[in-house]
Amino acid sequence: MSILVVGSVALDAVETPFSHVEEVLGGAASYFTTAASLYDQVNLVAVVGSDFPQKYLDFWRRRPVNLAGLQIKEGKTFRWSGRYHMDMNMRDTLDTQLGVFGDFHPIIPSEYRESDLLFLANIQPQLQREVLEQMPHARLTVLDTMELWIKTERAQLTEVIKRVDVLLMSEEEVRQYTNQPSIVTAVRQLFTLGLKYVVVKLGSYGALLFGADGTYFTAPSYPLEEVIDPTGAGDAFAGGLLGYLSTVKPDDDGRYNSDDLKRAVVHGNIIGSFVCGDFSIGRLRTLTLDAIGARYQELVTYSHFDPRWNPGQR
Amino acid sequence: MSILVVGSVALDAVETPFSHVEEVLGGAASYFTTAASLYDQVNLVAVVGSDFPQKYLDFWRRRPVNLAGLQIKEGKTFRWSGRYHMDMNMRDTLDTQLGVFGDFHPIIPSEYRESDLLFLANIQPQLQREVLEQMPHARLTVLDTMELWIKTERAQLTEVIKRVDVLLMSEEEVRQYTNQPSIVTAVRQLFTLGLKYVVVKLGSYGALLFGADGTYFTAPSYPLEEVIDPTGAGDAFAGGLLGYLSTVKPDDDGRYNSDDLKRAVVHGNIIGSFVCGDFSIGRLRTLTLDAIGARYQELVTYSHFDPRWNPGQR
Repeated sequence: MSILVVGSVALDAVETPFSHVEEVLGGAASYFTTAASLYDQVNLVAVVGSDFPQKYLDFWRRRPVNLAGLQIKEGKTFRWSGRYHMDMNMRDTLDTQLGVFGDFHPIIPSEYRESDLLFLANIQPQLQREVLEQMPHARLTVLDTMELWIKTERAQLTEVIKRVDVLLMSEEEVRQYTNQPSIVTAVRQLFTLGLKYVVVKLGSYGALLFGADGTYFTAPSYPLEEVIDPTGAGDAFAGGLLGYLSTVKPDDDGRYNSDDLKRAVVHGNIIGSFVCGDFSIGRLRTLTLDAIGARYQELVTYSHFDPRWNPGQR
Repeated sequence: MSILVVGSVALDAVETPFSHVEEVLGGAASYFTTAASLYDQVNLVAVVGSDFPQKYLDFWRRRPVNLAGLQIKEGKTFRWSGRYHMDMNMRDTLDTQLGVFGDFHPIIPSEYRESDLLFLANIQPQLQREVLEQMPHARLTVLDTMELWIKTERAQLTEVIKRVDVLLMSEEEVRQYTNQPSIVTAVRQLFTLGLKYVVVKLGSYGALLFGADGTYFTAPSYPLEEVIDPTGAGDAFAGGLLGYLSTVKPDDDGRYNSDDLKRAVVHGNIIGSFVCGDFSIGRLRTLTLDAIGARYQELVTYSHFDPRWNPGQR
């Protein structure tokens, strides 16, 4: 199978209380592509400027990444800079320069049309919709977004949500979009839009999977002693989730069942945890499926408990 | 077996955005006693004033609660009032009137001396130590505390931590006490004080169990659609934890193993979730072991996943 992703490719400058980097590979689609290509082929749709370093293109070419849909335009690549505080869950955006990303319109190469899985990374809802409409046969469509679009493009965002299978949102985004303090109530409201699954990202507390069929799953996070840079953890989470699903044969009706989705969310948490171990995609460069498998087994140990509840059983 | 608890018994006034109550049973020892007595006998050590409503004493007498160590002094019962905000994780203390609690010194009746499990609920570290020294043969000693004592009685608190087996702390308290942003690093620092287990309470995100033997367990929280009043959830958590353990036969060396502790933390989360369903101990009054068992089975379903990590297994 293969996965199509549309989203941003950027050059980032990141400051943490302990270190900083400049002009490193960033952007939601970059993290997603690098993560998901550990599992399967990724078809990238994005734009970069003529200043985009060749080394990053070379890196992706050494992986199962198709760059036919990566537009290279005269001008500057999208740049983002941010600063983290002692509490690494908090960050300030210092600067955003859209560059060639400002005029971006995604074009899907014909060779991408058979992609089974579609990930609409965090970009303007209008662009997400353009891609969705060019991919009517995708087996599973997954949507990410951010606070900015909930605030400024709510109606457009809602139209995209109505057309996808799975919505990924942080807990804060769910509350912001639904205006409901209770996540359970909020997710029930989201299901009225036609979604099959909602994944609520809880950062260092893991993630929750809700299914329209009543599925509920709380996926453990991997305990990290040290976080170098959490940038891209949410995008890499999506990469692990869709990357894993792309390796699974769906049920006879072409659907993924809730056990598939549960494992996929665990993979998402694992890849998200690895990303925090270095700046940019540093840790994903050297990551192997064996290392992912080892962390998966650790999470089984960390989260499973005796299913017999009765007191006094010995 | 039986459980000895020392802590506060209070009359609370609680305001939430939706409702309010006055002169209801509160205090850490009240929540603990009511919760743990669902499982086993609880020996209560506390003080109330001559104004303490008889109905609460009668309620405990109908349960396996021994009140021989409950001092009834001429004067006012400890009163606390607080207000919750729309985000029910935030509250302000509006007023505290110590009353007879101000001069409290715990006295352990001789009939309590054989208690197997000891819970030092959140009171001044000096008082916790007085109780600990009167109970040298307890099989397991568990300590709770609060931000106030970390700030004002740090040295005394540390002396108590050095003398107990299990420490319960919220994530914020762990960071405050250790001054470490990383919980993993912080807990390693706590183990240097001689603890066997550290339980980090994450509120609506569940709880983490760390063992000095390397055990790590992330216990799922029970998803609540509606929180009426979270007061006492941490104390009821401890009640579920020790209550469950009191029904378990320890290993031959008299110790509880990490599987026992894992189940106990799950019971803690379950009882904590029930408490939030009503003001005061309202929901605990009618709670049954069957209802606890049903929630336990739900949590198994909500948190367990296929232990085989390999992609493409179908």
